[in-house]
Amino acid sequence: MRQRFNSVTKSANVSLISMNNITRIYDNICDWMDGSGPLSDIVVSSRIRLARNVSGFVFSTQADDQQREQLLRYLHDQVMETELKDDLWYLEMSRMAPLERLMLAERHLISGRLAEGNTGCGVAISHDESMALMLNEEDHVRVQVLASGLQLEETYENINRIDDLLEEKIEYTFSPQYGYLTACPTNVGTGMRVSVMLHLPALKMSGQIEKVFRAAGEMRLAVRGLYGEGTEPIGDFYQLSNQTTLGKTEQQIIEQLVSLAVEPIVEYERQARNKLLKDRMAALDDKIHRAVGTLTHARLISSEETAYLLSLLRLGIQLDRIKDKDISLRTVNELFLLTQPAHLQHHYKQTMDAGQRDELRARFIREHIR
Amino acid sequence: MRQRFNSVTKSANVSLISMNNITRIYDNICDWMDGSGPLSDIVVSSRIRLARNVSGFVFSTQADDQQREQLLRYLHDQVMETELKDDLWYLEMSRMAPLERLMLAERHLISGRLAEGNTGCGVAISHDESMALMLNEEDHVRVQVLASGLQLEETYENINRIDDLLEEKIEYTFSPQYGYLTACPTNVGTGMRVSVMLHLPALKMSGQIEKVFRAAGEMRLAVRGLYGEGTEPIGDFYQLSNQTTLGKTEQQIIEQLVSLAVEPIVEYERQARNKLLKDRMAALDDKIHRAVGTLTHARLISSEETAYLLSLLRLGIQLDRIKDKDISLRTVNELFLLTQPAHLQHHYKQTMDAGQRDELRARFIREHIR
Repeated sequence: MRQRFNSVTKSANVSLISMNNITRIYDNICDWMDGSGPLSDIVVSSRIRLARNVSGFVFSTQADDQQREQLLRYLHDQVMETELKDDLWYLEMSRMAPLERLMLAERHLISGRLAEGNTGCGVAISHDESMALMLNEEDHVRVQVLASGLQLEETYENINRIDDLLEEKIEYTFSPQYGYLTACPTNVGTGMRVSVMLHLPALKMSGQIEKVFRAAGEMRLAVRGLYGEGTEPIGDFYQLSNQTTLGKTEQQIIEQLVSLAVEPIVEYERQARNKLLKDRMAALDDKIHRAVGTLTHARLISSEETAYLLSLLRLGIQLDRIKDKDISLRTVNELFLLTQPAHLQHHYKQTMDAGQRDELRARFIREHIR
Repeated sequence: MRQRFNSVTKSANVSLISMNNITRIYDNICDWMDGSGPLSDIVVSSRIRLARNVSGFVFSTQADDQQREQLLRYLHDQVMETELKDDLWYLEMSRMAPLERLMLAERHLISGRLAEGNTGCGVAISHDESMALMLNEEDHVRVQVLASGLQLEETYENINRIDDLLEEKIEYTFSPQYGYLTACPTNVGTGMRVSVMLHLPALKMSGQIEKVFRAAGEMRLAVRGLYGEGTEPIGDFYQLSNQTTLGKTEQQIIEQLVSLAVEPIVEYERQARNKLLKDRMAALDDKIHRAVGTLTHARLISSEETAYLLSLLRLGIQLDRIKDKDISLRTVNELFLLTQPAHLQHHYKQTMDAGQRDELRARFIREHIR
């Protein structure tokens, strides 16, 4: 971002792979989901995205197919001239199967809008899946960087470096008065959305979660579900993000989100967990172990119930209430990702209706935890 | 019953044991619960009881403590002069601990009324627990015989023999016009109540159970819960019994109950089970295995939920849907009996409130099925 150039680490991998090759990643979890980051008992992941638009092109939302195609080719060529190219997989939405697009969305690598598969839309993804460049989403370019746990400063450094590399090649629309211009006025300015995924089961159980939402609202922060805008929270996972992009610097936005919201909420959740352990241990153990029992025995299970039960397992692991060595944080994270509809169909190599998915989801889970 | 005398099989055991000795039976199931009887996939047990009153004594419900004490001594002495005496445990309610009385009620050997522990009330129980003589219940004498599965004819022969033995010694109030006179007019005549305990999970799941109730009502049959009058059905167990005791012979009452109600209901339940297997196998397997999962993992469980889940296990075993060798019909029957409040407290040798019981019930179940 209008700063000096920093190079990124190069990878030995090829820069461009075929759509078929990318399927090899789908049976594993993304690196940023490994649960190793700071405060990852409560902060699942950190995410920053930047909205950028290219001078001389109409906004993607106003463009026709041909205009979007033209911009996509231009962006592809520019991106592939940066040092990022050796670490990127490039994919065009209109050339992918619907199931593959859904898998990318389930991995948080593209948005629901991109997953629709419209002409002229694409994505470039770093091999470790921590970075994605969405092309012709609502804005011409949306850069996203993901990290495990609470790592907003590091993530910001990272995305800033990537933004600088792109800006060496691409002329973005930028107003000295307003900052970056975006398709939707809510993004004007920094064009930045910072979000953290929080796991707050104890605040939920103790009936304090509404208070957190109210406080977040007063700070002009949005609380959303696992898949961002327009999705409902499931499994006690809440995405907290800034709504203001104008009038503050990037550093201020991040610092305020962390110190005024994330850190206090983490502390409240920790207190609520301690209180559960102290006052309601038997009821808590019951909930957690019933979740294990249902996951290991159900023959039909929806993705919503799976998320709810895995959330309880995650809590049980964090609070050391589960003695079963088979049930690790990694297993839970894997199951979260791999039991989603598209991943499940990919795994069993067949398209399925919801009823069949529920059956094979239950089988998949039983095969992973016994 | 006013018929020829038939002798009963003698036992080598002592006729009278102390109250403490009877506690040795409490860690086992009763023989009649072993699930070996005819049609026992659906008919859990058969029961006949006779209401009798002794000439020259006021009804128990009208008697004072002294009158009841006097009758109890008289009845005890008469019973102990019959050939039954070698096979009987004799217990006086007022001399038992409340927990012990509750255990007898949980074993269906005494009624809730007797379990209250009033002065002058007693019971004589055969060593295999198939027969109980309640003394100073609503009537002076209530003879009960229990059997596994559908065995009403055999049970009737049995109870008839016992009734004859008692009538050799005791002069009952009997009117040539009305038959046996009883404390409550609903029992006048034969003084007989015939009941079968039915397990009807498939009719319940398929929403047909209300139809069965309506048909039973039209036949003047009562449908009750596990513990008879005034108890709600739990775990899909329904006790079906005659309401009419007057104007029919004992044989007619039994024959009509079996041919007009029990046999058709057994057939409907069987059809409903086959339909479940055919049309809703996955949903059925899911329910059954979730029940296994919850029973083997819960840390807190109520007796009502336990009954519900064990009912599903029972169905799963009958339909051969459970492959786990640990889970037999005997285990299920044992758990039904031994997880009830009084048995549970007896097992853990402590009095407990409902919360503690829920915790130890869950532990007890986990120790029995893994």
